Amino acid sequence: MDAYECRVRFGPAKLARLATVTPSGRPHLVPVTFALADDQIVFAVDHKPKTTTALQRLANIATEPRVAFLVDHDDDDWSRLWWVRADADAAIITSGDDHQRAIDLLAAKYPQYRRHRPSGVVVMSQVSRWTGWAAR
Amino acid sequence: MDAYECRVRFGPAKLARLATVTPSGRPHLVPVTFALADDQIVFAVDHKPKTTTALQRLANIATEPRVAFLVDHDDDDWSRLWWVRADADAAIITSGDDHQRAIDLLAAKYPQYRRHRPSGVVVMSQVSRWTGWAAR
Repeated sequence: MDAYECRVRFGPAKLARLATVTPSGRPHLVPVTFALADDQIVFAVDHKPKTTTALQRLANIATEPRVAFLVDHDDDDWSRLWWVRADADAAIITSGDDHQRAIDLLAAKYPQYRRHRPSGVVVMSQVSRWTGWAAR
Repeated sequence: MDAYECRVRFGPAKLARLATVTPSGRPHLVPVTFALADDQIVFAVDHKPKTTTALQRLANIATEPRVAFLVDHDDDDWSRLWWVRADADAAIITSGDDHQRAIDLLAAKYPQYRRHRPSGVVVMSQVSRWTGWAAR
């Protein structure tokens, strides 16, 4: 699957899974809502995270900016399975034009973000490699 | 969400995502079919992997056995979102009783594995921590 097809399948997905690495070297994994533009994947972190999970992923990115995102298509018919992984380099953005643009992208994709615009930090990840697989 | 509810939501899912860490310290992420029994998560690796992906995850586990699995429930209605993560310690099993038992578990869950029984190595992961989140 070439990078173009990876983007076409990945971009519209409602949910991706984000893998980061903790300072102790263990993998950490959470689902994220995201937007894709120009090989940049953006997601927002709640300004008042209810759990430590949001903070954990930011701490992880601060010490290891290499991250991975996965979108997959599940199907009882395994001949229709596919997945796309984006290996990327993440940066935490707290304000400024990039912060505004990231939130605009999320609001354009999700009605929920139009009704309640995220106000916390965003993470922008520059994709370094697309990998995709389809059963057929 | 307590460990019991995490297991109840995680176990029946058709697909989980597996995060490992590469020897260079980067996260690696793929979907896996799996079975859960007694806080052990098992999955099989094709005996003739078509890509290097299957080999990559085995190489990762050999150097860093700490792994994470994620099951999530996507929904346009965000009040129905939930996810469960299992942090676990993985071991590669090439033969013997545990190998047989793992494949039995996979065959019990998936018709595809009953029709075509996996013959390659399996990975057994002992869950060390369950973490779950539900919007409500």
